Amino acid sequence: MNKNLKTPINRRTFLLGGMALGAAVPALALSGDNKNIIGQSYPNWMKTPGGQIEAYGNVAKYEKHIIRHKAKDTAQTQLFSVWHSPIENQQGIITPNGLHFTVSHNGVPDINPEQHVLKIHGLVDKPIKVDMQTLQRYPMVSPIHFLECAGNTAPNAVSLTALDLSAQELSGQVSGAQYSGVPLKYLLKEAGVKTRGKWVIAEGADGGSHARSIPLSKLMDDAFIALYQNGERLRPEQGYPMRLFVPGWEGNANVKWLHRLEVTDQPAYTKDESGLYSDILNDGKIKRFSFHMDVKSVITQPSGKMILPVQKGFYEISGLAWSGYGKIKQVEVSIDEGKSWQMANLQGPVLSKALTRFSIPWQWDGKERVILSRATDEHGHVQPTRSQWREQYASYSFNHFNAIQAWSVNSNGLVENYYV
Amino acid sequence: MNKNLKTPINRRTFLLGGMALGAAVPALALSGDNKNIIGQSYPNWMKTPGGQIEAYGNVAKYEKHIIRHKAKDTAQTQLFSVWHSPIENQQGIITPNGLHFTVSHNGVPDINPEQHVLKIHGLVDKPIKVDMQTLQRYPMVSPIHFLECAGNTAPNAVSLTALDLSAQELSGQVSGAQYSGVPLKYLLKEAGVKTRGKWVIAEGADGGSHARSIPLSKLMDDAFIALYQNGERLRPEQGYPMRLFVPGWEGNANVKWLHRLEVTDQPAYTKDESGLYSDILNDGKIKRFSFHMDVKSVITQPSGKMILPVQKGFYEISGLAWSGYGKIKQVEVSIDEGKSWQMANLQGPVLSKALTRFSIPWQWDGKERVILSRATDEHGHVQPTRSQWREQYASYSFNHFNAIQAWSVNSNGLVENYYV
Repeated sequence: MNKNLKTPINRRTFLLGGMALGAAVPALALSGDNKNIIGQSYPNWMKTPGGQIEAYGNVAKYEKHIIRHKAKDTAQTQLFSVWHSPIENQQGIITPNGLHFTVSHNGVPDINPEQHVLKIHGLVDKPIKVDMQTLQRYPMVSPIHFLECAGNTAPNAVSLTALDLSAQELSGQVSGAQYSGVPLKYLLKEAGVKTRGKWVIAEGADGGSHARSIPLSKLMDDAFIALYQNGERLRPEQGYPMRLFVPGWEGNANVKWLHRLEVTDQPAYTKDESGLYSDILNDGKIKRFSFHMDVKSVITQPSGKMILPVQKGFYEISGLAWSGYGKIKQVEVSIDEGKSWQMANLQGPVLSKALTRFSIPWQWDGKERVILSRATDEHGHVQPTRSQWREQYASYSFNHFNAIQAWSVNSNGLVENYYV
Repeated sequence: MNKNLKTPINRRTFLLGGMALGAAVPALALSGDNKNIIGQSYPNWMKTPGGQIEAYGNVAKYEKHIIRHKAKDTAQTQLFSVWHSPIENQQGIITPNGLHFTVSHNGVPDINPEQHVLKIHGLVDKPIKVDMQTLQRYPMVSPIHFLECAGNTAPNAVSLTALDLSAQELSGQVSGAQYSGVPLKYLLKEAGVKTRGKWVIAEGADGGSHARSIPLSKLMDDAFIALYQNGERLRPEQGYPMRLFVPGWEGNANVKWLHRLEVTDQPAYTKDESGLYSDILNDGKIKRFSFHMDVKSVITQPSGKMILPVQKGFYEISGLAWSGYGKIKQVEVSIDEGKSWQMANLQGPVLSKALTRFSIPWQWDGKERVILSRATDEHGHVQPTRSQWREQYASYSFNHFNAIQAWSVNSNGLVENYYV
């Protein structure tokens, strides 16, 4: 499988099917002479003064169709809703706040930030409470991270045939942003955790009191109370006015609308962690806590339901890779159903527990092709195949699906979800 | 001035006024016992199901006052408008798209992307035109960069007394984002620039045909046609459907609504570059092209018009630094009107030609203090003092003002713009 990875990296990086990127400046534009290229007439928008600017800007009217997609299986209830981000319409590693995926079990509470208080209590020397104004005086950090729902890409985990889904519908429960907030270690040190304290129950102030048990060690490591997302205050559906952020861990552990942290000596086995978010293994046993999101990648361009506009021609294959354990080390792309693999370019910056954009030039020959991506993180974790993944879990288990994802590019240009 | 910079960097980084960051976990929260901290009653938003989620999200209703500010001096006309970003309300280095600063000389054209075409002509072997669909098939890059208007912080350049302005009003014509698009070198190579071609006239498709002459060398280096900003398509006021992006160069050279690139053997001296954007020196001569934005920094928290809520207490001093020449190497902060300087922490990632967030812990003693920041980039460029800057330029010259900016923190907590 890795045969052609023996060539040196600096060659591999720029080659795909023998095509060097430098030589592959694609001749895609229409050519002519200076006169017919410029044209004789100006468009209407150059003949009149333009419109006004808004104090808080919005997307162009021609882009209003680029929105979050509400997952079908939750459409019957307004309280438990799952909204997928249109990842195939995005570039880079930052998801705009209006399009960040979001999952809510009990709707979005309308919290007045002036009345909201975070409490830290339980096995501490000095129970404390801190309001928004005070929290903003603490030192802050602003890492760029991904956030992914444990149930992302679930259809490929449980469906025996590849369903006709777009990248958004299949794997749109992942987003990337710069989250800013206060490291939890400052607050926990201030409260003074007793020696017996090993876990913390984080509870949200939503109608269902979403709650998760988190090991104290994670909270003393890189966890923080997020107050900002991409430079502005959290949006309501992202936990306004504050959420717990545990980098690299499954979405629901990043408790939104956070109002209470209770230090305990053991996990609470809350409804949320005993029910929805415990993975059932192949032998019927339950893997109770599976916090880390595993190494994963998905090709976003081209991807499901797209139609390639030109047969036989140049395209850039581009996608996203991430790992809850650290940095992405490499992403390989195959254009022949996994028979051979080529190293993709990683667009910098490559950051720990963050989306990493990969890309590779592709001269499509117009024939049916199956394209795949396979990510490896800095700790050597590699994406499994779909069958390898399914061997671990019960047939109806769907969380933490991180297998290699394939798209079939048909000869008519249509791209479809595909099982290798 | 640099006396206290002789101590080793790793100590300097964590010390301010003898206070180590580790020891400085600020005891800011209210304390009590477990019972009174938790309280007896739940807020209303925990007693009812929450509200629904929108397909394209918006800010919380409690944050609707965080908006762009229209500069007073341009309020009389809707066509030439300058909107400042609320930098003192932001964290991190990404500005959300709705709050990105924007300047428009002729209003915002309503461009139908399906009818928009980019033409490259003039001194080329093969004039070309490329539409949006085709442009999206080229290889893309997605760097994180700052963008700053040449006229940012102009009031401090020309006013003889420090005006009562907030950070937004004074220096809000700077923003940071991840911009994605197609490197211009691919398109220029495809057109085939003739040997005589040394400059390119970039023209926008707005009502005033905003145009700038750019040296070919910059376009073959790191310039690109930006199509996306923070993962989604450009907003109309940012040049939808495409703008020229010349990293590190003054905002107006990043021509919005780009529709034409004409390769020439000399600059065109367009109205935009001969009029507004040429700097007048102290001897009356004109510095015709001043593309690079110089090294600069501004403390955003605390900053002008803020009132510190607690006298005598812990605060984090935080701000933004950037340089059009490359990476920020260091930012020093003074809390005693420039008598002594301490090294600030740089929040990673520190990227070339990008905003860099700096911060330093500060135990305010409640007395009147003047706080300043001074940035140095990787090429050794250092921010000048205000008087050093003014010595170079005519008294009425206001572009490219990058001098050290001071805020006075008064004993009543009010923060004001201040001249050192």
